Amino acid sequence: MAQHLAPALAAAGHTVVGVWSRTPESAASVAASVPGAAVLGSLQHLPAAAVYLLALPDAVVPEVLAAAQFPAGALVAHTAGALPLSVFAAYPRIRGGVFYPLQTFSPGRQIQWPAVPLCLEAADAAGLTALRTLATSLSQEVRELSSEQRLQLHMAAVWACNFPNHLLGISHALLAQAGQPWELLHPLIRETVDKALALPPFTAQTGPAVRHDAATLARHEATLAAHPDWQTLYKELTASIQRTAAGFGANNEAGK
Amino acid sequence: MAQHLAPALAAAGHTVVGVWSRTPESAASVAASVPGAAVLGSLQHLPAAAVYLLALPDAVVPEVLAAAQFPAGALVAHTAGALPLSVFAAYPRIRGGVFYPLQTFSPGRQIQWPAVPLCLEAADAAGLTALRTLATSLSQEVRELSSEQRLQLHMAAVWACNFPNHLLGISHALLAQAGQPWELLHPLIRETVDKALALPPFTAQTGPAVRHDAATLARHEATLAAHPDWQTLYKELTASIQRTAAGFGANNEAGK
Repeated sequence: MAQHLAPALAAAGHTVVGVWSRTPESAASVAASVPGAAVLGSLQHLPAAAVYLLALPDAVVPEVLAAAQFPAGALVAHTAGALPLSVFAAYPRIRGGVFYPLQTFSPGRQIQWPAVPLCLEAADAAGLTALRTLATSLSQEVRELSSEQRLQLHMAAVWACNFPNHLLGISHALLAQAGQPWELLHPLIRETVDKALALPPFTAQTGPAVRHDAATLARHEATLAAHPDWQTLYKELTASIQRTAAGFGANNEAGK
Repeated sequence: MAQHLAPALAAAGHTVVGVWSRTPESAASVAASVPGAAVLGSLQHLPAAAVYLLALPDAVVPEVLAAAQFPAGALVAHTAGALPLSVFAAYPRIRGGVFYPLQTFSPGRQIQWPAVPLCLEAADAAGLTALRTLATSLSQEVRELSSEQRLQLHMAAVWACNFPNHLLGISHALLAQAGQPWELLHPLIRETVDKALALPPFTAQTGPAVRHDAATLARHEATLAAHPDWQTLYKELTASIQRTAAGFGANNEAGK
């Protein structure tokens, strides 16, 4: 996250004063990507800054909060989707906030920041204003969300990003084992997503599960015999699609 | 499928002689979309044609083969991914073939046919040539696949299309319940797919499952208490991501 956020902030005209990381190499790498940023060797002597961004995995934020010596009254914001603002409650000397970019970050990927929703929360009005100014310099999609709203959004994001990516990974692996190129599925994947964004996805459901095509389901399950984990997951997903169709009324249109 | 295929064939310069469907309204609707096509009231008196396309759900193809009276020597091709060519073996009077478009079809969607992979198979060389001529008039991605290869491809397509669409549907439903707009997730979903097509998806895996973020996983599971089916699926998918990461070595980069 910091690898993506620091250059974006610098490009938007902000000064990245310093960078700290649990791994010094990461701090050096991030600092090298922004002009004038210092590598911070310790959390004990932090330089003055308008805002301290904790671009850290959720589980690490509490550890860093416990270890760091922020200046009194510092505005400190984490970037985690599922971590409530109350994580700051034990630290009355600092002003807590949240600066959550709703996006998936991998090394080497170029992020289109103007479209990335930035979800803000702050313990006080001045903190919220400061975070909003920072956020609007990066993105056109800035919104204030409560910790509970953010958690719901983060969970929806797991269903929309992390889980589909895993299934795409299984597809990729099965295709490679079959000696077929991944590119063969690209038009299908593109259309699947275009359709899911244009229609409510449940109404766009196609395939053997939703049409209760028992013969095809049996052929697929047999083909997965060498991958018992994926075979189990295939059955779970098929059952979930069928339960959903029974409950919501899905499109049984013949198709793929 | 027929609703999409018939106009595409007509637009490519072919004559759609007639259309039959189990539901006469569907036959009329497809026939109305192509100039000069007759609605066929029966499978007993079929007009002469260079090829008979069975654009039917997999389970219906055997029923139609058993019921229809094709002219002797007719080239008859089904469009199903998981149905082997041997489905024609019991009908020596006709020449069997497969014309499988690797795409998901829903009413109202415009299909970009030139990019749709068309997977062909035929019982004889002349049939394959005829299907290839038909296919290359629609698409630039025509390939001959055996029944076994096509089954593998079709299963990979279920993992890449039908299953991710279901998860996107769950995401959509959870977001709606949280009072948040679906559009908020669009940049994330776009980047997820762009990344999965550019990198091997397993190496692009992010999120609480792959980084073993137990606190976030527990918060998400608690949030799903009202949806026990989805809570179970959440746990299954999380476990599968973690097993995969243990086996394949995934990117534990902090991120979403």
